[in-house]
Amino acid sequence: METAGPAAPPTPVDFERTPEAYQHWRLSFDGPVATLAMDVQEDGGLRPDYRLKLNSYDLGVDIELADAVQRIRFEHPEIRTVVITSLKERVFCAGANIFMLRGSSHAWKVNFCKFTNETRLAIEDASAHSGLRFIAALNGICAGGGYELALACDEILLVDDGNSAVSLPETPLLGVLPGTGGLTRVVDKRKVRRDLADVFSTVAEGIKGRRAVEWRLVDAVHPTSQFKEKVAQRASALASLSDRPAKESGLLLKPLSPGISDSAMVYSTVRVDFDRRARVATVIVTGPEGPQPSTPAGILARGDQYWPLRAFRELDDALLRLRFNEPTLGTLIVKTHGDVAGTLAVDAVLLAHQRHWLVREIAHFIKRTLKRLDLTSRSVFALIEPDSCFAGTLFELALAADRSYMLDDPDRANTIALSGMNGGPLRMSNGLTRLETRFLGTPGVVAELLEEAAPFDPAAALDAGLVSFAPDELDWDDEVRLAVEARAALSPDALTGMEANLRFAGPETMETKIFGRLTAWQNWIFVRPNAVGEKGALTSYGSQSRPEFDFGRT
Amino acid sequence: METAGPAAPPTPVDFERTPEAYQHWRLSFDGPVATLAMDVQEDGGLRPDYRLKLNSYDLGVDIELADAVQRIRFEHPEIRTVVITSLKERVFCAGANIFMLRGSSHAWKVNFCKFTNETRLAIEDASAHSGLRFIAALNGICAGGGYELALACDEILLVDDGNSAVSLPETPLLGVLPGTGGLTRVVDKRKVRRDLADVFSTVAEGIKGRRAVEWRLVDAVHPTSQFKEKVAQRASALASLSDRPAKESGLLLKPLSPGISDSAMVYSTVRVDFDRRARVATVIVTGPEGPQPSTPAGILARGDQYWPLRAFRELDDALLRLRFNEPTLGTLIVKTHGDVAGTLAVDAVLLAHQRHWLVREIAHFIKRTLKRLDLTSRSVFALIEPDSCFAGTLFELALAADRSYMLDDPDRANTIALSGMNGGPLRMSNGLTRLETRFLGTPGVVAELLEEAAPFDPAAALDAGLVSFAPDELDWDDEVRLAVEARAALSPDALTGMEANLRFAGPETMETKIFGRLTAWQNWIFVRPNAVGEKGALTSYGSQSRPEFDFGRT
Repeated sequence: METAGPAAPPTPVDFERTPEAYQHWRLSFDGPVATLAMDVQEDGGLRPDYRLKLNSYDLGVDIELADAVQRIRFEHPEIRTVVITSLKERVFCAGANIFMLRGSSHAWKVNFCKFTNETRLAIEDASAHSGLRFIAALNGICAGGGYELALACDEILLVDDGNSAVSLPETPLLGVLPGTGGLTRVVDKRKVRRDLADVFSTVAEGIKGRRAVEWRLVDAVHPTSQFKEKVAQRASALASLSDRPAKESGLLLKPLSPGISDSAMVYSTVRVDFDRRARVATVIVTGPEGPQPSTPAGILARGDQYWPLRAFRELDDALLRLRFNEPTLGTLIVKTHGDVAGTLAVDAVLLAHQRHWLVREIAHFIKRTLKRLDLTSRSVFALIEPDSCFAGTLFELALAADRSYMLDDPDRANTIALSGMNGGPLRMSNGLTRLETRFLGTPGVVAELLEEAAPFDPAAALDAGLVSFAPDELDWDDEVRLAVEARAALSPDALTGMEANLRFAGPETMETKIFGRLTAWQNWIFVRPNAVGEKGALTSYGSQSRPEFDFGRT
Repeated sequence: METAGPAAPPTPVDFERTPEAYQHWRLSFDGPVATLAMDVQEDGGLRPDYRLKLNSYDLGVDIELADAVQRIRFEHPEIRTVVITSLKERVFCAGANIFMLRGSSHAWKVNFCKFTNETRLAIEDASAHSGLRFIAALNGICAGGGYELALACDEILLVDDGNSAVSLPETPLLGVLPGTGGLTRVVDKRKVRRDLADVFSTVAEGIKGRRAVEWRLVDAVHPTSQFKEKVAQRASALASLSDRPAKESGLLLKPLSPGISDSAMVYSTVRVDFDRRARVATVIVTGPEGPQPSTPAGILARGDQYWPLRAFRELDDALLRLRFNEPTLGTLIVKTHGDVAGTLAVDAVLLAHQRHWLVREIAHFIKRTLKRLDLTSRSVFALIEPDSCFAGTLFELALAADRSYMLDDPDRANTIALSGMNGGPLRMSNGLTRLETRFLGTPGVVAELLEEAAPFDPAAALDAGLVSFAPDELDWDDEVRLAVEARAALSPDALTGMEANLRFAGPETMETKIFGRLTAWQNWIFVRPNAVGEKGALTSYGSQSRPEFDFGRT
């Protein structure tokens, strides 16, 4: 049933990029406006068995896009509008590369789409929270994933040249769904009428010109002669609305350069140890050490070595590598090591200066990394042991876990603590805090817990419902070992589906709809013979043969 | 990839049942309390290749359950509480029959789960809107689908006999998800803490006794000696809260007895013609004819022959038969035939008496049938032609369609019309009306349209956004033919996923979460080798061999 491609690529994926070395994008700056221009190198794919024609993309192209958006936020506080366009003539972007998809394993396709979804949601996050506005300047054809990238922007401007159209040709041409939130954003974000969306999503050639505006698929069309000027006008107009600082210096994000071996990934504050036989990865996050800055100026001086930024950049990188490079490590055991009071002191600084642009960026980045953990299809158990620092921001790791175990040993102090960071800045994709999600059945306790200044010992944490279990020192080893072993023995697919349903109780948002409803349907379609079978539409695309379907509806 | 079972059963499924002929349930009445007792006949399955041991169920068992709930609503207005229990000793229900699932095609499994979900949601609908309360009286073990049935009830009472537990063993035992909303209801309806839900959903033996109460999995446990008395007390207490009438007579639902052939299904007000070559079924609903009652007493006298009830019972039955018995008829063309004014007159009666118990039941039944259409995985095109009556309630059929085409022929009058029935009584599972869902982008127009008393001609309907296209008489045949042909050529799986995403824009509810998020993940898992492959968990269950998994996480 799996298609030919390998479960993991021959060489592990590396997620570190620098703008000077981008292969596929040109990032330029002009006052408050950045231009991110797509110019995909055909022979620059992550694997050699496909060519990235017509600005089609693979994971490598999207890693650069994610890097660019991240750097604009941290390194260029003066930027207020980002114009996303193409350097190719009459082509904006042809979407995800079909030959790459065809040659990829199911797990690769799913993880590829998850990452590209996270990148687009990061664009929307920057718009919602960081005073950045994004304009998709569609200077040519814009198909599939190309249009989905445009949908993630605040405004979509399309050139009116009689030819350039927006389209979602996945269903009519490939027998799959648009993989990056396209259907959801068409009806839920742009609020295209559902019958028009139905037509749009089944017409391979797409919709262009005035009709694209009338159907709400784009915000405006402009003739070729005026296109650049109109884009510049809108970029300038949107820039004037921003609260980004005009004269502050940015913070440079330097390479993380972890030490990667067959048994571990080692960063400065994060390490991940692999137990391949048990199919377990143990993630240990070290809390802040030594004196920490207490002002934005001090934080800026510390740069990317400031503990919260460094720790969560490392955690983010580690999660991505685990997803793509270590698919069989099905259980993540999360631990922390450090000082509860010191961790809370950093939270106090983040909270005191949360309106400062850089502190704001750091908090939203921590939030996005925690969402990445929520969306990682591995079972997550938090182990809370003496000398750990599951406090405030780091306690979110325990709240994100499927279960938490806290050692209750009368001879060794072991505490957890909450901070204001648990009360709002780090919301999940369902729009709630992790505490609110945890206590949906007893919502009144959230405010009470947040008012509790003192740390919780194991008995108090268990009583408050903040941890799942608190075994004593006699039971600890066996109880934890048995739980981890039992988990690792279960069907990985059933666990993925179960966790995707249990982790996001409460309200649904466009984001949870994309990862829940849309992604799940897409995963299903991606394994069906009508798509990936010998005569499936994805398999047949670009060949002489036409697809042959089993027409039974399901 | 598909498992061994046939796509459709050897004999077509018939959805008509009468209580006297129930094989698997005993329905009894005692004042305001009905008892619906499960007593599944082991050899009473729809197919001979499995035995329904331990009150496990197949589609046939659930058809009787759906029938019973429906009849209590219409035939027994005096009933206020329904106790769902079992006649088997120490067994409430073991859930969906695993050997039935293993022997069924993917499409059958999906449609089976969809129907059982609709049955459980109908129970919740009766609780929310009809003054009925449901008590799950769990007098023995309650596993999987058995617990999911309990979750659909208002209260769950479990016997405390040291043995009886509630459980969702699907993930640990079978490598699939609970198929009938279990995970969603555990965290979203009962608001079980997500880490406890995680433990519960991975422990095959389940949770019993006090812990089941503490974790919110059940509302109370009672020792065997007191169990019947406690159930009776709660039934009586809940009955006292109801607004159901004490002394009204019910309305008998007589068999529909359609004429079914290889080319059509013919009812009194609905007919469905099959074009197997084109893979199209044309559904024609005939509007009211002759004088219609204008009072509840007149409606009761007309009985189940009252037009709205008759028409929607027939449509409901036709949709179910299409789903299970005609899987390759991928496009439904919906037409109506009748008089716009006469159809609106019936709506006026339904609206004028909407607080009467019977009128209320009729409106909610129409609502459920329209939801059944929304959830039917076939492309739906409405064709609005002269002599049609897409007015008010019947216009909901056009709003439920993926697209609508309205003939604009200056020589032949052709109109649509709205009524108050489009303004609230027939809400979709997302909690919005179909007009609100259609006009998410321009919400202000909904109230304006509802105030428009006059019918809309094709130009006005198109201008108002109420129809997708209004071709003239020269273009009509070609445009409609090409649209239907193009639709029938697309991948049926991609269409199912696309429609599931485009039809339910706007807010999500527990109901849309069950059908969107949960069902989609389940469908995916149901086709994965880890479940249904040669060594998958579902395949291996009950045999000597243990499942072997591909442990790559996706």
